[in-house]
Amino acid sequence: MYIVGIVSHKGKRSSFMRTLYHHWLIPECRKIRIILAEKKLEFKLVLENTWSQRDAFLALNPAGQVPVLEDVGLNVLADSNAISEYLEEAYPEHCLIKGDLLQRAEIRRLNGWFDHKFNQEVTQCIVFEKIFKRFHGKAHPDTQIIRLGLQNLNNHLSYINWLVERRHWLAGDEFSLADITAASHLSAVDYLGHVSWDKHIEAKEWYARVKSRPSFRGILNDTIPGIICSAHYRDLDF
Amino acid sequence: MYIVGIVSHKGKRSSFMRTLYHHWLIPECRKIRIILAEKKLEFKLVLENTWSQRDAFLALNPAGQVPVLEDVGLNVLADSNAISEYLEEAYPEHCLIKGDLLQRAEIRRLNGWFDHKFNQEVTQCIVFEKIFKRFHGKAHPDTQIIRLGLQNLNNHLSYINWLVERRHWLAGDEFSLADITAASHLSAVDYLGHVSWDKHIEAKEWYARVKSRPSFRGILNDTIPGIICSAHYRDLDF
Repeated sequence: MYIVGIVSHKGKRSSFMRTLYHHWLIPECRKIRIILAEKKLEFKLVLENTWSQRDAFLALNPAGQVPVLEDVGLNVLADSNAISEYLEEAYPEHCLIKGDLLQRAEIRRLNGWFDHKFNQEVTQCIVFEKIFKRFHGKAHPDTQIIRLGLQNLNNHLSYINWLVERRHWLAGDEFSLADITAASHLSAVDYLGHVSWDKHIEAKEWYARVKSRPSFRGILNDTIPGIICSAHYRDLDF
Repeated sequence: MYIVGIVSHKGKRSSFMRTLYHHWLIPECRKIRIILAEKKLEFKLVLENTWSQRDAFLALNPAGQVPVLEDVGLNVLADSNAISEYLEEAYPEHCLIKGDLLQRAEIRRLNGWFDHKFNQEVTQCIVFEKIFKRFHGKAHPDTQIIRLGLQNLNNHLSYINWLVERRHWLAGDEFSLADITAASHLSAVDYLGHVSWDKHIEAKEWYARVKSRPSFRGILNDTIPGIICSAHYRDLDF
């Protein structure tokens, strides 16, 4: 575990100790980083290698998973959905689950789609297989599973195409948690260079818009020791 | 697909057509049934065998998963988390995510614990292996996976013990969504007779309290064609 650095959205280091325990390639951690940045909340990042099962970390979250957020007042929050709902309630400015009842339900439906369906069918098959499997003491990556993940990815990109042919953002007229969650998962796969953007033009155009938001800069500037990002990962005009 | 029956909490049949598409042994469907009953909202149940991938059902939820709720005004809601948050917002009476910010975050953390961690480590290993795998055209149940699920179940029951030694309900002083989600998963495993209640006395006492709530009656009265429930499944004094 080490401190990656203070992330400040006012361009200065500060003693503010809001802390996010994370790992770079876990999409749920990327999501909370982007939400915090959208809400202009300062935080520091602490890298947590969850597979080492540190006692002090398990005391924060018995599930042993990142993200975990230590907010002001030493409030400790675990579970990415609980954290994102908490941040909406605690910091309602720059709202990310907005609109009427049905609009909010649509944002949460798509949030669930990417955190569960996309996660299981794509992220786990590609990012877990290629990167995390070895840390958990398991066998080498299974190329059949990776191939399946890539096929599934194309189906999900087609679904994003379908959505953004009908809407400006994934869940409707406004940028929302749905865009953040989808882009968090896609960006982890994109870091490894596995997204065929040129076959999915509408999805690419949508992702370019997400990528150009200031809240996404931290994610794009990640340099992960031992894992080189794809040539276009940081490129806003990819 | 057939209509199971009108579920009325006022003891009368009605023409009210709020509809929940479900399958009996999917815990996320059990959860929405209990929430609707806690909120005293009438609904009818429609059995959906998701593996048959009906076009009309896929039009309601492209993810092809239950639960799906058609609420009044033909509002269609999918994703169990989106549905439960929607029901909290649309029908705030008999609130199930209540308390201050931290209390609400704790309810959602435990909701996530059971819907994801317990689901992956127990429900999928036992209920999916024994019941749903064959419908998805996959091989016979894998006894090693079932054995792993049973080991994991004991760890989760110990965690419930630990929680209810410290709190009256799982997330605090009051009955909440956390209890509903945990009991939804446990009840599906209990239907198949796999819970060693007598080794986990505090968890058993907590489950007995959940089981005795009127909102749980529908779940306990389920008779699933071809799948006989355990001897104690319906027994309030088990």
